[in-house]
Amino acid sequence: MTVSGTGATPEWYYEDLVPGRRFDLGETVVDGAEMLAYARRFDPQWYHVDERLAADSEYGGLIASGWYTASLFMRGYVDHVLSRAAAAASPGVEELRWKAPVRAGDRLTGDLEVLDRAPSGTRPGLGTVHLAGTLTRRGDPDTVVLLLRFRGWFARRAG
Amino acid sequence: MTVSGTGATPEWYYEDLVPGRRFDLGETVVDGAEMLAYARRFDPQWYHVDERLAADSEYGGLIASGWYTASLFMRGYVDHVLSRAAAAASPGVEELRWKAPVRAGDRLTGDLEVLDRAPSGTRPGLGTVHLAGTLTRRGDPDTVVLLLRFRGWFARRAG
Repeated sequence: MTVSGTGATPEWYYEDLVPGRRFDLGETVVDGAEMLAYARRFDPQWYHVDERLAADSEYGGLIASGWYTASLFMRGYVDHVLSRAAAAASPGVEELRWKAPVRAGDRLTGDLEVLDRAPSGTRPGLGTVHLAGTLTRRGDPDTVVLLLRFRGWFARRAG
Repeated sequence: MTVSGTGATPEWYYEDLVPGRRFDLGETVVDGAEMLAYARRFDPQWYHVDERLAADSEYGGLIASGWYTASLFMRGYVDHVLSRAAAAASPGVEELRWKAPVRAGDRLTGDLEVLDRAPSGTRPGLGTVHLAGTLTRRGDPDTVVLLLRFRGWFARRAG
């Protein structure tokens, strides 16, 4: 039984993930309370958790942990792609760059592009897809805040 | 004013992060409720959130989101290194691999090694340090579950 990342009947298989295809990953507004709660638990550095020190610094206020920003990207990827795709796990990430600080209230939109793909050499029912994603802060001008390249495994359509 | 990642007086500067130096990042036991709460919010794929589907699958039960595992690594890095080091931000991660599934109750230990370093070309007071980290599940045998390579910026000792 092949299911989508959220257990539904998949619409998209390996064959549908054609290089150059792009996916809109939707929009999220950064919740300051959640951003701070994440940082207190997982990344309690002063520019993520200490409002006073952050306000007096070059940052001018609290900025998000980069891992929180990556978590927001992941949610968009699940909601807009993995929920509809015959996705298996991911072997990992090849590049993850934090390009600009993220702050409470920022409006972020996600974007994903298929770079290339190949059938898996070791797992015959799967293909490996090389993907590039971004989160962009909407404003004047728009600013890319997160950029990542990673690989995902997807089931091939039954022949 | 140079402070550590948690706002304390730093013990370690760029000059102290000698290639080959290793740091123990301590131990954490995976909390099943937190692991599930993270996945429901940021990575609601069935093998992270649906106990029934996960139990019937090759995984035999819920496994952690890879981003949750990375978050646990980050906490160990802050507690054991950044809290004592003159750390600035990180430009990003060069490699992040999820090598084996992580489950509730797993006992994980973290480890960090300095790979190499160089003074920053663009920011004279800083040096860039190339680091490799792992999380290892303790058991028989021990199993590396997370591996990452990344760069961090650290302040240089005032001359």
